[in-house]
Amino acid sequence: MSVVTLEKCRENIRKQLDNVVDFWLKYSLDRVHGGFFTCIGKDGKIYDELKYVWLQGRQVWMYCRLYRTMDRFHKPEILEAATVGGAFLRKFARVSSSSGQWKCAFCLTRDGKALKVQRTIFSECFYIMAMDELSRLTGDKDMQLEAEQMMEQLIYWVQVDPSGLGRPQLPGEVPINSLSVPMMLMCLVQQLTEGRGQEVAQKYKELGNWCVEQILQHIQRAGTAILENVSVDGSELPGCQGRLQNPGHALEAGWFLMLYGAQSGDKEIHRTAIRNFVELPYQYGWDKEHGGLFYFLDVDGHCPTQLEWSMKLWWPHCEALIAFLMAYSHTRKPELLEIFSEVYQYTFSHEHNGYGSPFSLQHGLHCP
Amino acid sequence: MSVVTLEKCRENIRKQLDNVVDFWLKYSLDRVHGGFFTCIGKDGKIYDELKYVWLQGRQVWMYCRLYRTMDRFHKPEILEAATVGGAFLRKFARVSSSSGQWKCAFCLTRDGKALKVQRTIFSECFYIMAMDELSRLTGDKDMQLEAEQMMEQLIYWVQVDPSGLGRPQLPGEVPINSLSVPMMLMCLVQQLTEGRGQEVAQKYKELGNWCVEQILQHIQRAGTAILENVSVDGSELPGCQGRLQNPGHALEAGWFLMLYGAQSGDKEIHRTAIRNFVELPYQYGWDKEHGGLFYFLDVDGHCPTQLEWSMKLWWPHCEALIAFLMAYSHTRKPELLEIFSEVYQYTFSHEHNGYGSPFSLQHGLHCP
Repeated sequence: MSVVTLEKCRENIRKQLDNVVDFWLKYSLDRVHGGFFTCIGKDGKIYDELKYVWLQGRQVWMYCRLYRTMDRFHKPEILEAATVGGAFLRKFARVSSSSGQWKCAFCLTRDGKALKVQRTIFSECFYIMAMDELSRLTGDKDMQLEAEQMMEQLIYWVQVDPSGLGRPQLPGEVPINSLSVPMMLMCLVQQLTEGRGQEVAQKYKELGNWCVEQILQHIQRAGTAILENVSVDGSELPGCQGRLQNPGHALEAGWFLMLYGAQSGDKEIHRTAIRNFVELPYQYGWDKEHGGLFYFLDVDGHCPTQLEWSMKLWWPHCEALIAFLMAYSHTRKPELLEIFSEVYQYTFSHEHNGYGSPFSLQHGLHCP
Repeated sequence: MSVVTLEKCRENIRKQLDNVVDFWLKYSLDRVHGGFFTCIGKDGKIYDELKYVWLQGRQVWMYCRLYRTMDRFHKPEILEAATVGGAFLRKFARVSSSSGQWKCAFCLTRDGKALKVQRTIFSECFYIMAMDELSRLTGDKDMQLEAEQMMEQLIYWVQVDPSGLGRPQLPGEVPINSLSVPMMLMCLVQQLTEGRGQEVAQKYKELGNWCVEQILQHIQRAGTAILENVSVDGSELPGCQGRLQNPGHALEAGWFLMLYGAQSGDKEIHRTAIRNFVELPYQYGWDKEHGGLFYFLDVDGHCPTQLEWSMKLWWPHCEALIAFLMAYSHTRKPELLEIFSEVYQYTFSHEHNGYGSPFSLQHGLHCP
């Protein structure tokens, strides 16, 4: 792939982004109850009214980010949609759990009643991202404070005591280090500190270093594999759980690690990010026969227990495109551009089941 | 398909059953800790040691049933395996929940420590099936009593108060009638009453009738669809949840309803079972292009939100074979034999990812 074709990719992606943003601005906002519809057919028809908190959070974040950082999206309707979505989240997403701590619901009814609460940290992560990004537009200090308070809660669950998440402690459970947790926390550290100055950077510095350390523990088998779950002291766990690989997560972690390495000037971390979290997941995670990134794999080649293991979901492909392009732009290694080109062609040549978009997780999957 | 080819199917299935039982007897029993390994490669190697309670229960039930009802399986090693599995279940499966009620764990470590407890009734269902069937072989009255006590608990959760299952009550939740619940309870009623005489039959008669009534509520849209989730007064629910179809569940319900109709002499129920729960799920659930039963569908043709919706899992195909053959043997309608033949050919002509068996749910899936 040459620089000329890379410019063509950019034009195409720009066009796709314009279409996607137009579509969601047109059909997604719920002007009656606030928040966003996210189950939308290609014809714009709403086929389900439930409001998943992480999708609401991602959409608020996305609108704000577009408005704040790209001139052509600096439009009042985008700011308005973000504000309406943010108000809905702020009003309804938080529920008090049995432990008296704040949790975020996983799913709300159209009018904001909690329908499901998951015993994980991920809805909270997307709530924080939305509140932090929106407070940058509106200058709402209370909102920024609420984002930081939820972040404190989340750090407490992860580093001190997870019992507030609502899972009963069971005798057979051993604590594990799941890649998704330090990866998401790392992403939040980068979100909360971006452009906020030295004081905030200092506040989250230790947490950022902890995330890096936790992420690096997932490099296993003499550097030949990234495993999704390891023990808290960084060794391999037995069974299917221990052998599980999620190439999309590894690439996502690689993207955040590259940023960390570039920002901190830590060249060793940056090299590790590219070698172990960008090049390696492509080597083991890309389907050499049909193309596409597998959702899950077993490092010893057994069939993963997840029914959906062999599916090629659109969102890890988008994240992979970011990771490969970032790795190329940081290194100018031609082989990284080749990988980007292959993933790009695969991703844009497959028909999606739904309206492919940055928001609708479950409706854009495609099989080989 | 003629009666001669039907006899050939029987020979093949008999051979498959012998192979499967041999395989599991050889590799599955854990002689150190009791219970069964269920993640086993084709070469017999154990690739995960976790013990899922519902699989343990199903395996105990299966061994007992083979031993009790088929001469060629009336062998001491089958009785021994069932007994060792049953002892493991009895010792470790039950955990006391926060409400002080007994729950069954969903998953145990190899040595029986609880690792996960689901907030549903299904582990308990398989526990009851195992204990009831094993008590028939051993004559253990305490075990039979324990099965009945767990059954009482389960009926209480379903009919009176589900809070003991451990799900917090949330303001957005509406109670629903999910087909899997009355279907499983119906199966348990048939299990607990089989050959036990009038007194036991009388004890569960009302529950059996209630299950039938609940199952029939899933016939929707003027008899043209079976919907997986309906409201408690039997009307269609909004959104994806309300439009969800699970053709395998419908066929399984059809199998239990046919039995109910035949045993009770209720010809109307029997006709409904065949028309709405056997013929109809085949019409909407069979993939006309590639063959095979879809896992999930949306009655209006939207893409279901379940990632695995288009997969063809082996176990609904086995259940479908039972349902179609039973429907044919009850009616001698040639079109039912034709359907059986089609499902039979599809099921036995596809390579499974794992060692296809009545026990290993997640390792025998195949894609079109």
